Amino acid sequence: MTSDPAATLTHVTSHPPGLFLSFEGGDGAGKSTQARLLGEWLTGLGREVVLTREPGGTELGLLLRDAVLHGEHVDARTEALLYATDRAHHVASLVRPALARGAVVVTDRYLDSSVAYQGSGRDLGADEVERLSLWAVDGLLPALTVLLDLDPVAGKARLTGDPDRLERAGDEFHRRTREAFLGRAEAEPGRWLVLDATRPVDELAAAVRARVAALLGVPA
Amino acid sequence: MTSDPAATLTHVTSHPPGLFLSFEGGDGAGKSTQARLLGEWLTGLGREVVLTREPGGTELGLLLRDAVLHGEHVDARTEALLYATDRAHHVASLVRPALARGAVVVTDRYLDSSVAYQGSGRDLGADEVERLSLWAVDGLLPALTVLLDLDPVAGKARLTGDPDRLERAGDEFHRRTREAFLGRAEAEPGRWLVLDATRPVDELAAAVRARVAALLGVPA
Repeated sequence: MTSDPAATLTHVTSHPPGLFLSFEGGDGAGKSTQARLLGEWLTGLGREVVLTREPGGTELGLLLRDAVLHGEHVDARTEALLYATDRAHHVASLVRPALARGAVVVTDRYLDSSVAYQGSGRDLGADEVERLSLWAVDGLLPALTVLLDLDPVAGKARLTGDPDRLERAGDEFHRRTREAFLGRAEAEPGRWLVLDATRPVDELAAAVRARVAALLGVPA
Repeated sequence: MTSDPAATLTHVTSHPPGLFLSFEGGDGAGKSTQARLLGEWLTGLGREVVLTREPGGTELGLLLRDAVLHGEHVDARTEALLYATDRAHHVASLVRPALARGAVVVTDRYLDSSVAYQGSGRDLGADEVERLSLWAVDGLLPALTVLLDLDPVAGKARLTGDPDRLERAGDEFHRRTREAFLGRAEAEPGRWLVLDATRPVDELAAAVRARVAALLGVPA
């Protein structure tokens, strides 16, 4: 939110002794399954693991999540601000304290979702949404972001449960969102691991473990 | 939220055929009374008048207002974002449509409250909070902002009802907030009318009417 965010924001990507990881991708790509499997492996290594999600990783966040997904119609700016508020509180009250005590924090979605969904798919520019999101979290980025990449049509077939607003938004929207995720991963390869979400669950889990093991300096 | 907001944001201060007015000042200064009296006069002139408030001028806003005033503890960034979200939705769903159909919109508090309370009183800088707020409303400023200026100690004695978080924050905080309002009014005299809130209610109402009449081109 400063006039030159790059000059003043610290994009912290490592948090000794903790580690911050995120999963991204469309609905139905298997993010929560892979987050759980990674968490089980890390727990087996003796690490404290915090599995969390956005939106809705806190009490306030659940309230905001309901407001944005199922409440009255909101314009694009309000929607982006609702997600940014959820994220600010999530990071300040849950993620940063966990990292400070040495935990591995694994979040199902983080700010890349906002940039991809709100920035590319709707009225606001990706740069504006990214700047808002980075301001909200005071520059905190994951050390690793795993993109479970999936063709939107395949993702829809894998979904269960009721469709919410994003899921109803149409194939073209989801196609643009997928391209936005892939573009972000390409621009910042050091932070991203892109995996084909149609591969078997165990293969995907092994690929994620390999990358996280390297970050932790332990055998996969 | 752009790298140079001044270059890209339009600070729209007039909205033919509508007119956007705000009241600012500490709690107990008489903002709601003066807003009501101004509204009655404008209604008598045959104008459509929309009396509203921040935070909490919409259904979503009421939910956010509860979250920020009486909910779990939130850090300064989350608090600023909650107010910005409320304001974005208020402006997009209520203020702009009313201005577009020619109404006079009178709001009890607007973004100057955020800048004064969050920017000056707490951890964030006034510039950051102002930039966030202007982004939230896409640059919309009132044509006139009336500051009902009151010594914080006098204001406290006039208050009724339960104290909320801001009211409990202490005299020093309220003194800094008052200075922030006065500083903003001094920096932008064309938008502000500063009145001594201890003057009689009728005198204050007449002073407000005189300024609004000039804006509307009608006799006070």
